[in-house]
Order: sequence, then C-alpha cells, then structure tokens
Amino acid sequence: MQQHFASDNYAGICPEATAALLEANTGHAPAYGDDDYTRKVSDRLRDIFETDCDVYFVFNGTAANSLALATLCQSYHSVICHQLAHVETDECGAPEFFSNGAKLLTIAGEQGRLTPEAITEVVTRRSDLHFPKPRGLTLTQTTEVGTLYQPDQVATIADTARQLGLRVHMDGARFANAVASLDVAPADITWRAGVDVLCFGGTKMGLPVGEAVVFFDRKLSEDFAWRCKQAGQLASKMRFLSAPWLGMLTDDVWLKHARHANAMAQRLSAGLVAAGIELLFPTEANGVFARLPAPVDAGLRAKGWRFYTFIGAGGARLMCGWDTLPATVDALLADIRALSGAADAL
Amino acid sequence: MQQHFASDNYAGICPEATAALLEANTGHAPAYGDDDYTRKVSDRLRDIFETDCDVYFVFNGTAANSLALATLCQSYHSVICHQLAHVETDECGAPEFFSNGAKLLTIAGEQGRLTPEAITEVVTRRSDLHFPKPRGLTLTQTTEVGTLYQPDQVATIADTARQLGLRVHMDGARFANAVASLDVAPADITWRAGVDVLCFGGTKMGLPVGEAVVFFDRKLSEDFAWRCKQAGQLASKMRFLSAPWLGMLTDDVWLKHARHANAMAQRLSAGLVAAGIELLFPTEANGVFARLPAPVDAGLRAKGWRFYTFIGAGGARLMCGWDTLPATVDALLADIRALSGAADAL
Amino acid sequence: MQQHFASDNYAGICPEATAALLEANTGHAPAYGDDDYTRKVSDRLRDIFETDCDVYFVFNGTAANSLALATLCQSYHSVICHQLAHVETDECGAPEFFSNGAKLLTIAGEQGRLTPEAITEVVTRRSDLHFPKPRGLTLTQTTEVGTLYQPDQVATIADTARQLGLRVHMDGARFANAVASLDVAPADITWRAGVDVLCFGGTKMGLPVGEAVVFFDRKLSEDFAWRCKQAGQLASKMRFLSAPWLGMLTDDVWLKHARHANAMAQRLSAGLVAAGIELLFPTEANGVFARLPAPVDAGLRAKGWRFYTFIGAGGARLMCGWDTLPATVDALLADIRALSGAADAL
Amino acid sequence: MQQHFASDNYAGICPEATAALLEANTGHAPAYGDDDYTRKVSDRLRDIFETDCDVYFVFNGTAANSLALATLCQSYHSVICHQLAHVETDECGAPEFFSNGAKLLTIAGEQGRLTPEAITEVVTRRSDLHFPKPRGLTLTQTTEVGTLYQPDQVATIADTARQLGLRVHMDGARFANAVASLDVAPADITWRAGVDVLCFGGTKMGLPVGEAVVFFDRKLSEDFAWRCKQAGQLASKMRFLSAPWLGMLTDDVWLKHARHANAMAQRLSAGLVAAGIELLFPTEANGVFARLPAPVDAGLRAKGWRFYTFIGAGGARLMCGWDTLPATVDALLADIRALSGAADAL
Repeated sequence: MQQHFASDNYAGICPEATAALLEANTGHAPAYGDDDYTRKVSDRLRDIFETDCDVYFVFNGTAANSLALATLCQSYHSVICHQLAHVETDECGAPEFFSNGAKLLTIAGEQGRLTPEAITEVVTRRSDLHFPKPRGLTLTQTTEVGTLYQPDQVATIADTARQLGLRVHMDGARFANAVASLDVAPADITWRAGVDVLCFGGTKMGLPVGEAVVFFDRKLSEDFAWRCKQAGQLASKMRFLSAPWLGMLTDDVWLKHARHANAMAQRLSAGLVAAGIELLFPTEANGVFARLPAPVDAGLRAKGWRFYTFIGAGGARLMCGWDTLPATVDALLADIRALSGAADAL
Repeated sequence: MQQHFASDNYAGICPEATAALLEANTGHAPAYGDDDYTRKVSDRLRDIFETDCDVYFVFNGTAANSLALATLCQSYHSVICHQLAHVETDECGAPEFFSNGAKLLTIAGEQGRLTPEAITEVVTRRSDLHFPKPRGLTLTQTTEVGTLYQPDQVATIADTARQLGLRVHMDGARFANAVASLDVAPADITWRAGVDVLCFGGTKMGLPVGEAVVFFDRKLSEDFAWRCKQAGQLASKMRFLSAPWLGMLTDDVWLKHARHANAMAQRLSAGLVAAGIELLFPTEANGVFARLPAPVDAGLRAKGWRFYTFIGAGGARLMCGWDTLPATVDALLADIRALSGAADAL
Repeated sequence: MQQHFASDNYAGICPEATAALLEANTGHAPAYGDDDYTRKVSDRLRDIFETDCDVYFVFNGTAANSLALATLCQSYHSVICHQLAHVETDECGAPEFFSNGAKLLTIAGEQGRLTPEAITEVVTRRSDLHFPKPRGLTLTQTTEVGTLYQPDQVATIADTARQLGLRVHMDGARFANAVASLDVAPADITWRAGVDVLCFGGTKMGLPVGEAVVFFDRKLSEDFAWRCKQAGQLASKMRFLSAPWLGMLTDDVWLKHARHANAMAQRLSAGLVAAGIELLFPTEANGVFARLPAPVDAGLRAKGWRFYTFIGAGGARLMCGWDTLPATVDALLADIRALSGAADAL
Repeated sequence: MQQHFASDNYAGICPEATAALLEANTGHAPAYGDDDYTRKVSDRLRDIFETDCDVYFVFNGTAANSLALATLCQSYHSVICHQLAHVETDECGAPEFFSNGAKLLTIAGEQGRLTPEAITEVVTRRSDLHFPKPRGLTLTQTTEVGTLYQPDQVATIADTARQLGLRVHMDGARFANAVASLDVAPADITWRAGVDVLCFGGTKMGLPVGEAVVFFDRKLSEDFAWRCKQAGQLASKMRFLSAPWLGMLTDDVWLKHARHANAMAQRLSAGLVAAGIELLFPTEANGVFARLPAPVDAGLRAKGWRFYTFIGAGGARLMCGWDTLPATVDALLADIRALSGAADAL
C-alpha cells in the first residue's frame, strides 16, 4: 500500500505498541483504568517528566485539548492561542463546546509561534465585563507549521502568561517530535518552563488511539476523572489505551520513532530545496511546508499522492510519520523533480 | 489470570477482532473514517439491519448514548428513561452535558422494562413551560437487569412514544446478547419495531474500544459527523475502530460470542438455583442477578472474586462475557456452594 | 380587578418600589450597574446582612438560582435538593443548562424540609466516577410548601453539608416572608447559619422585576459579573432594577409587606380550618396548602378564582401577596363555605 | 443631571413607556405572559410587521440575540457576523454559551456592513468536518458604526445567505433608528427582505428593560417559550415588560423618539464637520463616530463628558438617545470647538 504525506495519522500502529497491545490482551482486567498497565505507564510518565504529575488517558487530541483547556477557565473566560492553532482551526468548536462557551482569542506570530508582545496586547486590550476575561493560553509544540519553541521561548511565553493571570496549556500532538528534535529533557520544555498541563499526543507517535493529559499543576486536575467520564472520554477497557503507551515509552521507543520521522522530514526538505522548491517554514521536526508550483501540486495528486493544502500559508503540507520510508521520500522527490522539470520546460 | 464476573468489559479482545485489527495495520490509510474498513463495516451493518441506515463509530457507550440522545432533543426538552437506566445511573451526567441540560425523567418498571402506562403518565403529567418538554425516550436492550424486551414489547413502547411526540433511542450496550437470546432479525427489535436510533455496543461484545451509532431515521443524523468531531468522538485512525467491528460482524462471530456468554449465564443461573440462591430477575441474556447471603458475598470477595453489588436491587450482579469459561462458572458455583454450606451449618 | 391566590407574582409593584423607580428615572445614568442606585442598595444589603457580602442583581429567580448554583459546582458535579424544590420542579432544567449538565439529586423530607439524614444518605451512597460528585446543596426558605427552617435547622443542614464537602445555597424567592415570620436578623438564617450564597427574591416581595444574588463567601463570586453578562443577566439600565430594591429596603418596607402577606395567609388558614378544610402543611409564611373537596375546588374555579393545584401534595396552593386584601381572603372563604355547605348537603 | 453621549442606554424611560407601566400596575394579572398587555402588544407587533409573526419578550439584547441565534444552529455549526458585530465584541461569549459552542466567524466589511462576497468567501472556504459548518448569519441594523443597510442591501445579503444554506438573524438593538431613518415599512427591511428572526431592541428606544424576539419564520420558534424559560428569560410579572412596549408602539411613539435621536445625531455630526472634525463613518442614524484629536478627547473627559472610545475604529463614539437635548449637543460642540481652538493655537 502506498505511503502518503497527508498526515502522520495515516500511519498505522508501530510494532512496539502492537506488541504491548497484544501482550495486554490476556485474561480479565479491571475496567476504567484500575489495571496494572495504566498504573505502570502513569508511573513511567512521572519518571519521564521527573515530577509527580497527574496522568489521564483520553481517546483523541481534540478531547484532550478541550478537556484540559476547560480546567483553565470557566465559560465566560477566554483562551489565547495562535491563529493557526489546531484548537482554533481544526477542532470544530470543541474547546467552546467542552468549556460551554469560552472564547479563543487568536493572535498572529511568525512561524507559528506566539510572542510575548502579541499575548500582552490581546490580554490587556480589554478589561470590561462585555468581553471574556483571558484566563488561559495554549501553545503548540511542535507548532502547526513544523517549527519548535526552544526551552527559553516556552519559558518566556509561560512567564508572560503567568504575569497576565493566565494558566498555560501545551498542545503536544507532536510533542515526541519536538523532544526528539530539541534533544532536551521533556521537563525542560514543560513544567520547568512553566507549562501547567500538557496534552501528549500518542496517535501520531504510532499508537492506535489515545492521548495523555499530563497535569503538572495538580490543583487543575481536581475531579478530572469525573470530567473525563462525563465527557465520554473514560475507556472501559482502558488497558488497550494504556498498554500501547507502555510499549511506546519503554526504551525510548517514542524518541526513536520521532527521530526517524524528523529525519525523513529533513531528507524531504533538503530534496525540495535542491529541486528549487521554496520552503514556507524552516523544517524543525516532522513536517515540511513548501510552495509547490501549481502544476507540480496537481501533477503529484494526479499520480495518487495525498497531502494537504495548508490554508493558513498557501502551500503544501507534507508530514512524515514513524513509518515513512526513505524510498517514499525519494519517490516523492523524484516525482516533484520530474514535474518541476516539465513545468520549467514549458 | 483469574476471570471475574464484575463486568463483561473485564474481558479482552476476541480473536476475530484481534485478527482484523492486525490485518488493518498495514501501510497508510486515510484518516477520520475515509478508509475501506470503515466503508465495508458500515455496509455490513446496513446488510445486517436490512435497511439503508446511517452509521457512525464513536469511542464508548457513554458518548454513543449521549450524542444519540442529543439528536432527539434540545436543552429544554426531556428524555424518558427507566430509573435503572445506565444513562441515569452510570454516565455521570453525560446526557445532560452533551445535550446542554436536557433532563432525564425516570420511571419505574418491573424487571427493568419501561411500560406504556408509566411513559404516558410521566409525559402527560405536565405541559407547562416550567418543566422540560418530553421529546425522547430511551430503552435498554438487554436491560440493565439482564432481561429482554420481546419484539412486540419494543413495538408497543415505541408506538406509545410516537403517539406522545417522542423519538425512540435504544441503548444496545448488550444488543448482541439480546439478538442472540431472542433469535430474531436485528431489524425486528429496532427499526421495524419503531426504534429511531440504536447505540450498538461493541466493547462488551469483544472489541477493544468503540460503539456504533446506527440511525434508522436518517433525518436525525443530519450533520452528526460534525457533532461527533466537536464532541471529541471522531477517531483519526478510524480503521482501528472499524476493522475489529468488521472482524466481529463477519460470519456471525458477534452472535457466536453472545450466545456463548448467554449460555454461561444460564449455566451460572441454573447452578445458583440448584444451590438455593434466589435470583432477583430472570436470566434472559448474559447477566445474573442474585441475592447472595451476606457471608457468601463476603466469602467470595475474600477468595478474590470480583463482582458488583447492584445498588438498584440489593443483590449481586454477575456478568458473563464472550470469554467466560465453563470452568470459571463452575469454580464460582463451587465456592458459593461451599460458602452456603458453611453458612447453613452455623 | 379581581385578586387571586395563584401566585404572589400576580401582584403588581408596591407603592414604595414604584416611587423609587420613578425617582430614578431622571436624566442620564451610567449603564450596567455603575450608577448610584446600585451602589446604594448594595451597601444597604450589606447593612441588612451585617457583613461585607458581594451583591448582584439579575432579572429573575430562575437565573439567580441557576447562576448561583453554577458557582458551587462544575458540570460533572451534583447538587442536593428537596424533591419539591423549585429548581427541580419549575425551572425547566435551568440549573442543568447554566451549569452545563450538573445533576440535581433529589431527596424527600417532611414539610418540604431537607434533613441531615437524607442528605448524608444521598451524598454517601456513591463515590465512583460514574456518578456526578455532590458539591452543592440548596435549601428553600420559605420552603415550597410554605413552611420555614428555624435558624438552628438551617445551621444543622449547612453543617451537615459542609462536613460532606458541599457548599450551601439558599433559594430565597420568599426570603422576606421567612424573615418576617421568624422575626430574626437576616444574618441569622443565612451566613451565620452557614449559607454561602442567597438568592434574595425581589419580584414576589413587590418589585417589578429582579432578584439579588448575595454571596457571603466572596471567593464564590470571583468573576461573577462576567458570568452574569455572558448569561444575558446584566441589565443595561440597571438603575431600574436596583432603585426599586432601594425603595423596598428602606425603612423595613420589605418586612412590612411580608408581614402583611403572612398575616393574610394566617387569616385564610384560620378560616379554612374553621370551615373544616384540612391543611396539608402548617401555615408558617404566606402560602396556604389545603385539601379542597373536589366540588369546592371546581366551584371556586367556576366562580373565577385562580389558584394552582400543587402536584407534589395533591391539594390547592393559595398564595397571599403584599397586596392581598382582607376582603379578598374573606370573599374566598365565603365562597368556600358556601360550596362546602352545598357539598355537605348532597 | 448632565446628559452624556456614552450610550443610548444612559437615557431613562420615555414618558409614554412610563405611563403604560404605571397603568399596567393595577391589581392582579396572570404571570409569565398570560396577560392582556402581552397579548395586545404581540398583536400590535404583528400589525406593525404586517405578518403573523411569533413574538417573545426577553430581558436584554444579549439574551435576545443569543437565544435567537441558538434557534438557527446547533453547537457544531457556525454563524457569520461582521467583525465589529456586538455579538462578537460585546456579549462576553453569550452566543457561544447559549448555543453550547457555536462559533462566530467574523468577516470585514466597509462601514460596518457585511458583503455578499465576504460571506460567500468565508462560507465556502471549508467544508470539512474539522470546522463548524456555517448555518446562520447575523447582520445589525443600525450597524455598530451608525450606518444602515438599505432594503435592497438586506435583501442581497439574505439572498446570499439563503443560497449558502444559512438562516438570517437581524440584531435590531437600534432597529427603531433604522426604520425612522430609512422611512420604510418595518416589513421591508425584515421578512420581505429575507430576515428570519429579528431582535427588536426596546431598551435603547426608551424602555426600562426588555427586547422583543420576532420570528418571521415560525418553524424556528418551535418550543421557543421553553428555551426562554430554561435560559432565565421568562419574566414572571411579564406585564411590566410588555406594557411599556405597548405604550411605545402606540401612535408611532417609537418612531417619534427614534427620529429625534437621529436628528440630534445629525445636529452633532454637522457641528463636528463644521468644527473641522473628521467623521469616521457617515451619520445615518443616532450614532456619530469621530476622530477627536487627543487633546480634545482628553479635554472633554476632563470636563465630565462621558463617551466611549470605539476600539474597532480608533475614534470616539457619540450616541444620541430619545432624550438628548439640542442644548446638550450644542454644549458638547461648544466644548469641542473651544478645545480644538486651544489645540490649534498650540
């Protein structure tokens, strides 16, 4: 079956997660998270983050982000996010739904990153009763355009937020790619930098289903299990969510896969530049954003390649996954070169 | 590992679902349901129900029920249910949350079944603006106490509902057990009997995760995909939800497993009666409800058996799953007999 | 125009409130509560309650109760109330709507009063994730059946609540009648007895529109102004809500009117007893609940009298307002006696 | 007391509304709208709009708009509005709250008006599941910047909306000023032009409290009374909301007052132009938007004048009400001229 660059969620389950899933499929286990796999992987996450964080497993990223944001605010509050943030552009109003009406206030920012200046501006613009009071901020690591926040950038954002009375959420749908690329301790770009709650993406790393919500500020997670249950996010056979996580978090499997995806993006990025294609953003993790000439774009699709047009920046989004083969990257590049040459020859 | 009777969700994934899951784990597949497995199993469900129903896969039963009920009513409406209904007693207010405030109006009824009289009474009791207007009704098949609605009983309930202006939802967390026990066409206890939307339980049948929401009245499912997405119930790697369903729905695997679970319940039930234990409800599917003498109850727990006390009826709930072994049933019965004998000897 | 006993909200605006309304209708005033009338009456309420409480004016009792309860709980929590509580029976699911799904857990109780035993039972019945966690309690003073909580009864209820982790709300739609009848300091049946937030009813006292939400625990009212605004409960011309309150709270006008209404209820109650009519509840404030023989009930309605049948107790609810005339009471009694006599003569 | 230009809601109750309020304050009247005043004014509105519309009275504009918009969409839908629309900028997320999460999609447009092109662009930009599906459109008449939609402009907008599958809401907080200025039949800028539901502003016209929600498409108002009740928007003493409306809608009182306010705005506008002050928008109704030099702005405030800075356009918003005196306008202009002269002399 052909590989694609549409999304890292086109990839399947990685072998280590599959093995863990099958291993967990033995006999009976208590439901709703009261099982050994869930306990072990929760402890494993506490080890990885080097702190006594509170951990919950939910079904997908939309739910993870929305439930986490809902702990930061009430319905009459607002949450600051980048105008390209997934919570704003691709979750169909889920943050508003789960919070019962909290408004997302979007701001611009180069390369998909929030800036302290823009945050301060939007938060201080109004303080009257007629506009939702800002109480939360969310930043995405890896950003929606494949760039990264350095640890000190996270810290600066979080510090700005805190001074303005906001709590800080990190959308980590591609957190693994960020950690792998930055080569830092996970704690350094989360709680040590001021993040209160992280949504740690599992699906795009190579799991079948499920994300982890990691609360570094445990006051925020008071009664969070009830919140998950009511929101339809408490798995009965929880072991089948948590065991694959355990497989993934053992022996740095997650970082191995993330490094591979990142390397494939570098291979693709370098090939595009060599082919004279303009990159829209620097390639810092597993996503490549490129301005494909229209005939190239159309030609690729005609050949069966699937990828998204990134509306926010007017170019192609090419995502690499844990399983993207070098040969797949090379085949895409070959097609691009051929199509570009044909285009140039016109 | 010891088997238990706490819940049919203590069981793992059945072999056929596992095989289908592994088979689907090949290469890339489009996300969010735009894949072949999802298409095939949706068609398979249309075959099974002999009608052009609309099918959606969500993560769990709480979400399935709540999202389906939310299509029947607005926030200022109400939904009639049995006082023992799972939506009332065990979903942590999810129906109220997803509907933004619709009230559940509970009624009593012998053996876990709604009655036309009680439905009519609660619906007609009030018609003023100060109380939520009834617009939906939900019945559970298999009921929460292990009994069944015969096809004509479903039809009578649904007919009563329709005459009162209510749409009809069926909570089918254990729908398979009902079909297996009643030995009827699935259509006969759903749309042919007047059911508008069914939540068809997958997890308790032997899937890892996921339930199907089946709309027989397709007007109700308008924009339901958006509803699921916003509610955090749209799986990105949908094939891992749908493929196991496909494995389950091929060659009547689902009915084979359901029949087995039902048979184990009969074996248990018969053994209990033989041991002089009173049954609280007739055993019609895969659940057995029994009044265990306190020393027996305590003794079983001391031996490591796990089962729930059914608050609504003051006895033990003993559930059999697709994997419950005859030997497990016999071992439980042996312990019960031994404990009963010891108790009698006092 | 004929007077009725249907509800104390059939009465109009009392003269003192009218005068204050007209007096406030002079020139321009800042909107949204930033005016002198609102400031003055807020201070007046702090005087009356002898504490630095936080005060907000909203449009009606349903909104007041729902917004106040929403400060006690999140959507996955529950609120304990009497089964006859207005929030349960007559607010069309508003508490569930404003809290985004919090469940009301109803309990029985003699004469419309909650009991510590019943509260403890319902709160401790379950502690699992599958049921909303109790976090709030609401009691109604004057109760829905016209009875009162003595100060020590309030204190006992509130103390029980607090030990169980619940915050305490008082629905004071007829708070004035309670204070007038009990002849206590308002503080003695509110914060000194453990009440966290009071909804102080204005409409039934004789105002045109508007209730006061009085927070004794000011932590609960954090950002409550934003909550009101978002919920459509912030009046732009606030002075026309607050000024009538000021007229009402000057020189104990509110207590004068409440005493009058209470006295009319006593007159009615005594007359009914004298006429051999059974009272359903003791008459302790401004409501009289009586078991009218069917021919009497029908006869009164045929003569044009309006009153409610109280579903919860199977009798007639006869409410007296600030303007109920002795002659009106006497006329009703005369009709009752005539109809009773006719009935007896059959 | 000094008059201001901050908002037309700084004005009090007009004499005709006051008279009607006092006249209604006689004896007892059934509650919740079952009274003669409410019936009469509802019929009066049907006369004025020349159609059998459905009419409801709610407490304020935020509630009116939010409840009306909630009839157009479900939580996973979106509503198109101008980026300066009150629902977006000044209702604290109320539309999101009442709809349980529907997103407002804002578009730009000259002089506060929506354009068919911008509407089409935003509605057709996306059709995938990951973004709320557009189902409603709201336009404001008089716009937030004091301009008007001509009847044919409303019709064009509504026609565009309908072709795109959107229902049309009109925020008529200053509907009276629009009708007075355009000198058209109210029907011509509402249902005849394709508007489905109108929020007809009462407060700014000179009422103490209350707005009318007028449904031209009666299918949208199914069970709307329940919606109002649950949302805390059903007045018990409804006559005190509806009677003032009756006073206002008799003998074209509403248009008389609106014409006066409009005329005062023209007087102010002309005076500003004569004083060399730049207008930000044409003065078409009762609001004047002007770029006051900073010293003039500061000087006016120092003299005690109250007015808003209009964030969206960077100038002063000066609103005239039903009671604005020519002398007040002249006094403001005199101060502006004096301050301008002083500024120029620097």
